[in-house]
Amino acid sequence: MSAVPQAAEQPLFLREDIGGVAHLQLNRPAQFNALSQAMLNALIAELDRIAADERIRVVVIGGEGKAFCAGHDLKEMRGNYTLGFQQALFRLCSKFMMKLVELPQPVIARVHGIATAAGCQLVSMCDLAVASDVARFAVSGINVGLFCATPSVGLSRNIGRKQAFEMLVTGDFIDAAEAQRRGLINRVVAAEGLDGEIRRLADSIIAKSPVAVRMGKQMFYRQLENGLDAAYQLASETMACNMMAEDAAEGIDAFIAKRPAIWKGR
Amino acid sequence: MSAVPQAAEQPLFLREDIGGVAHLQLNRPAQFNALSQAMLNALIAELDRIAADERIRVVVIGGEGKAFCAGHDLKEMRGNYTLGFQQALFRLCSKFMMKLVELPQPVIARVHGIATAAGCQLVSMCDLAVASDVARFAVSGINVGLFCATPSVGLSRNIGRKQAFEMLVTGDFIDAAEAQRRGLINRVVAAEGLDGEIRRLADSIIAKSPVAVRMGKQMFYRQLENGLDAAYQLASETMACNMMAEDAAEGIDAFIAKRPAIWKGR
Amino acid sequence: MSAVPQAAEQPLFLREDIGGVAHLQLNRPAQFNALSQAMLNALIAELDRIAADERIRVVVIGGEGKAFCAGHDLKEMRGNYTLGFQQALFRLCSKFMMKLVELPQPVIARVHGIATAAGCQLVSMCDLAVASDVARFAVSGINVGLFCATPSVGLSRNIGRKQAFEMLVTGDFIDAAEAQRRGLINRVVAAEGLDGEIRRLADSIIAKSPVAVRMGKQMFYRQLENGLDAAYQLASETMACNMMAEDAAEGIDAFIAKRPAIWKGR
Repeated sequence: MSAVPQAAEQPLFLREDIGGVAHLQLNRPAQFNALSQAMLNALIAELDRIAADERIRVVVIGGEGKAFCAGHDLKEMRGNYTLGFQQALFRLCSKFMMKLVELPQPVIARVHGIATAAGCQLVSMCDLAVASDVARFAVSGINVGLFCATPSVGLSRNIGRKQAFEMLVTGDFIDAAEAQRRGLINRVVAAEGLDGEIRRLADSIIAKSPVAVRMGKQMFYRQLENGLDAAYQLASETMACNMMAEDAAEGIDAFIAKRPAIWKGR
Repeated sequence: MSAVPQAAEQPLFLREDIGGVAHLQLNRPAQFNALSQAMLNALIAELDRIAADERIRVVVIGGEGKAFCAGHDLKEMRGNYTLGFQQALFRLCSKFMMKLVELPQPVIARVHGIATAAGCQLVSMCDLAVASDVARFAVSGINVGLFCATPSVGLSRNIGRKQAFEMLVTGDFIDAAEAQRRGLINRVVAAEGLDGEIRRLADSIIAKSPVAVRMGKQMFYRQLENGLDAAYQLASETMACNMMAEDAAEGIDAFIAKRPAIWKGR
Repeated sequence: MSAVPQAAEQPLFLREDIGGVAHLQLNRPAQFNALSQAMLNALIAELDRIAADERIRVVVIGGEGKAFCAGHDLKEMRGNYTLGFQQALFRLCSKFMMKLVELPQPVIARVHGIATAAGCQLVSMCDLAVASDVARFAVSGINVGLFCATPSVGLSRNIGRKQAFEMLVTGDFIDAAEAQRRGLINRVVAAEGLDGEIRRLADSIIAKSPVAVRMGKQMFYRQLENGLDAAYQLASETMACNMMAEDAAEGIDAFIAKRPAIWKGR
């Protein structure tokens, strides 16, 4: 395991690569994995490294200790109480969240415990999310006088607007089953089955052509922001280009010949 | 209770303020609370008054009599059968609906009976909605040759497009349980529990910092209309500004000190 | 039944008109109704004819044989392996899909079997969809190295983005019940009840004013792509125009007089 140092000599997050999957574990368990400025900078740098590493096919983001992630570091925010610090902090956090979308590889949130405020936002901004049945979700900044504005961006693009608004103004928790029904997460499993379920999901993605997954993910989020006409123009061009990749020719030929495809990743 | 006069000396709606909550009751029970031009003008004026009144923290909109609201006043529309009247009427109605979104305070629909056409639209445009389990919902203008165009705006931003389209071309009702599953309403309770449930929801919001709720609501609907990048720019700036409000400092300090926060509302 | 000739003298699709409903049956059962270039061109031409035919009030699209539609014709695509062919093919397919949205009449997908890749897209782009309980849905291009880019446009406008992304990168099937829960289809019935259910849905639409349905469908998809303000401007204007149509006057007068309306279709 590689590690990024933090003040107390504990790494801010842990990284372990297993069979094409980079597992990033937030590692501030005593602070419920709060997203401090240092943590955000370290994660952004790591995602940049992963983006350039073709051996990594899937990223899994989880957390050490009891919580998945409880959002921002409130003590750090109060200890640097200027508008400039807050602006820089939220821009940095938004930059991190956008990196998840821009990353060529799919990102799976591994939610084993509570995900609150920016922690809930982190779940919403991952491409996929698998949760333990004891996980719970809230955008609870409103309880301390701070409306979860940036978390609302991801949340309201995962679940209905009335349901998002209720969570934002009440700060109430929803459980994992409800989060799945609403669309915030993909799958819920018993705690002991969490890693197995994520491994199966990651393996399913790794079995696909890397070039198709990369082209697809990039196109997917771009087309979502367009009207139908523009979305179809983008998607048609992407699909024609994907078709001319070696992997598509191999995949189709293998399918017609009823044999397994061998991806070249180009 | 204050009251706005109408032709037959009955007020068009009733208003009662209880503990920071303004309860507006549509009061044309014999017309199923139809949204006549006079009713819309009166409601717009009342919402403008409420917007400027910081003592009001939550608005609840309900209806007297058997129905919540059955939409527009068809007799009035047929009695003023010019294109100019219809254009003015629908612009006025749309202005009212937008006022609900622009209002600084959260608005809860109290749906105790049927909500049809613009009545269903009213539910869809409130920030939150709580319904009795006997409430039913339809966009039934199509039954009289009038496609519910303006209701479709709110409805299709609450529920899926295929489900909205089906309701719009069939005019069929859905019940409260189905409305909740689809996202049109937040909560369903037995008729006798409706006011208690709304009081709990309102109290939960009133317990929060007014400045955070106001900044949050305004930002929420604006970010929904943007792409991810622009949404995050707006949300980041809003959150930094919210953080510099006195209430956020107090809220975080109280949280760290494990004591209740005392909001100043600024 | 009219028919469009194909190479082997079998028509590419069948058309049967029953009581105001045009039933189009994809007719390449041995190829699981693959959307070849010839098929797409023939369907586009047919939709253009239907658009101009006021006797047709509803279109139902189904498929002959075991499958509803398994997407593109992979052999044709490999047999014409140039970027130009692929670009032309996907633009043509996107043009067909947009025709469904632009068609004045509502379109119902009749899904009796599997709907994969562009077949699943076809379901997503119809206004309404009714499926047999044995139908299954997947965007499975990823299995042959080809990310379902154009299908993702329709799919992600019917179901949540995390659920769409999972289907796109895993290629996994969902069953009809799950497709309904997510919003991809409107209704699920036992196979033997499929035609009856579609007939009831079509009859419900045919009982409405044609002019109201036409104005409504066109407005519905346009307003979906706008922000709230612009959507309300468009919808208000549409509703005022609809109100001045003879059918609206008749519909309202009939409603007030408690008699059935007689539509003139203008």
